[in-house]
Amino acid sequence: MRREPQRGASNERARESTERRGERALIARLGRLLHNESSSSDRVPFGDDMAAIPASDFLWTTDMLMDGVDFDLDSQPRRAIGRKAMAVNLSDCAAMGVQPLAALCAVALDDRLSMADAEEILVGVIEMARQFDCPLVGGDTNSWAQPTVLAITIAARPKPGTKPVTRGGGRPGDLLFVSGPLGGSILGRHLSFTPRVEFGLALNRELPVHAMIDISDGLAVDLGHIADASGCGAELDEVRLRAAIHPDAVTLSGTSGKTPLEHALSDGEDFELLFALPPDVETAGELKQGMIQIGRLTGQPGIVVRSADGSRRELPRMGWEHFRGGA
Amino acid sequence: MRREPQRGASNERARESTERRGERALIARLGRLLHNESSSSDRVPFGDDMAAIPASDFLWTTDMLMDGVDFDLDSQPRRAIGRKAMAVNLSDCAAMGVQPLAALCAVALDDRLSMADAEEILVGVIEMARQFDCPLVGGDTNSWAQPTVLAITIAARPKPGTKPVTRGGGRPGDLLFVSGPLGGSILGRHLSFTPRVEFGLALNRELPVHAMIDISDGLAVDLGHIADASGCGAELDEVRLRAAIHPDAVTLSGTSGKTPLEHALSDGEDFELLFALPPDVETAGELKQGMIQIGRLTGQPGIVVRSADGSRRELPRMGWEHFRGGA
Repeated sequence: MRREPQRGASNERARESTERRGERALIARLGRLLHNESSSSDRVPFGDDMAAIPASDFLWTTDMLMDGVDFDLDSQPRRAIGRKAMAVNLSDCAAMGVQPLAALCAVALDDRLSMADAEEILVGVIEMARQFDCPLVGGDTNSWAQPTVLAITIAARPKPGTKPVTRGGGRPGDLLFVSGPLGGSILGRHLSFTPRVEFGLALNRELPVHAMIDISDGLAVDLGHIADASGCGAELDEVRLRAAIHPDAVTLSGTSGKTPLEHALSDGEDFELLFALPPDVETAGELKQGMIQIGRLTGQPGIVVRSADGSRRELPRMGWEHFRGGA
Repeated sequence: MRREPQRGASNERARESTERRGERALIARLGRLLHNESSSSDRVPFGDDMAAIPASDFLWTTDMLMDGVDFDLDSQPRRAIGRKAMAVNLSDCAAMGVQPLAALCAVALDDRLSMADAEEILVGVIEMARQFDCPLVGGDTNSWAQPTVLAITIAARPKPGTKPVTRGGGRPGDLLFVSGPLGGSILGRHLSFTPRVEFGLALNRELPVHAMIDISDGLAVDLGHIADASGCGAELDEVRLRAAIHPDAVTLSGTSGKTPLEHALSDGEDFELLFALPPDVETAGELKQGMIQIGRLTGQPGIVVRSADGSRRELPRMGWEHFRGGA
């Protein structure tokens, strides 16, 4: 998972954007280097939200969070930081529709932290782990004279009778949904969100979900991942999208110079689920209440936004930084 | 695993030692916080070289390496750094006598690194993974304006008919062995060592190994871990120990102000195996050639070194910093 740096003010965006492009290039290069590692019999392709442990039905995932990038020890509660480090990994389990089982936590603690502060971070990790019955069973504790880094790994398993939901099973005509409103997570939700583990499991159990991802890089980018992996394009419905704008996106637009819709399309760290269902699926009850329909997959490459007047404009792949449409 | 910082000159030892004691205290506190997480049915106790993945026979381990502590990007080859990050995790598999299966690699790359340098590190990771048939199947690639951090996680499994070898099965009277000579690893072996995966598997397959650990914190400290977990003490035989001193320990003693034996007892990152066998075990062939007998487990608490003249002195638990014996 790659995330928007959380400290960046608007005028730092250009530099960050360059860094992230470099990061993407490196990831792409790494993907090519590793291409031959995965056998074609793997149940989960390289680069999905989780990877398969060979010769088993276990999946695992790791996410590294860094002080000054993913959290800010100067201004944010220690316990919330620990909770986030666990929650972003649980969100990957949610995105595959699988049950988290156990976690490992590796940490390099800034040696300027007091013992009490260090413990608060780890208590946050443990609290979030307990909340999801995903016990912390081991790890690696270090300290150094640099900013704090947390790397958590989670092992998970599909519930009996289900399979992991990858990014790549979408088909043209599938309807696209998100599990909740988007945008403005930097105002606090990026730290306090609840990973959609139960919802992801329920979806996977009750509906024929074709493709799923958690929105960590922003809707536009993560929809791009589903579209690429599925060999599809996508069309977002602007009228429907407006129902998926979080109030925080509206608040943030008051000072950011961006529209609420731009925030919903491009902000990272919403950690809602984005998923594709066949168009004939009937949903009802609680599950339906957690679904906001926002568009559909298409047979044409590219991601377009269809306005109320029926006009279409293409969404550049890299997210908002190139997106200067009228939304 | 905790490791000796590799940059510390002798006159920085006092501070490092204080840091490490703080780290130990934090790890102990974390261990108490997590005590209730592990069920009594777990095959591997909390704090061993690897942890169990629940409801399976899989084990996993994670180790985090930091620039300026575990490696030095200013002076060491990038590829060797990547190899070490994978090798320390493979060494944990060796210490349990289990087969590595697959790895995840999370990384925060210093954004001053060129793409070519970043790639060299990752090529090192991949090379070492391939050498041990332990493919890298996923990960998390990040960059930031701070020193590079690598956190690798490995999943492993016992070979059919074997169980993981923990630290806690030693019994008074067991003979203690190491898999190779010790001390002075900072002269290069800490970076270039070969993890003893094959040897650990062979031991576990062919001999009734009671307890095993890899020497990452230094012989004295890691023997303490085996003794504690096994409820034993230990007696090291100084005459035998002298046969387990690495030539690098002799070289280093020329400038360090410490004796070769002190280096063998206290230097971290040898990554040889330390293991306990019942005294009546017959060994032969290749396996025997990889074994240096250094002492035995006892029923008395504490770790003592028995000199050639039969006198005994107790080895303080924290390693060499308090050890000012005549060795």
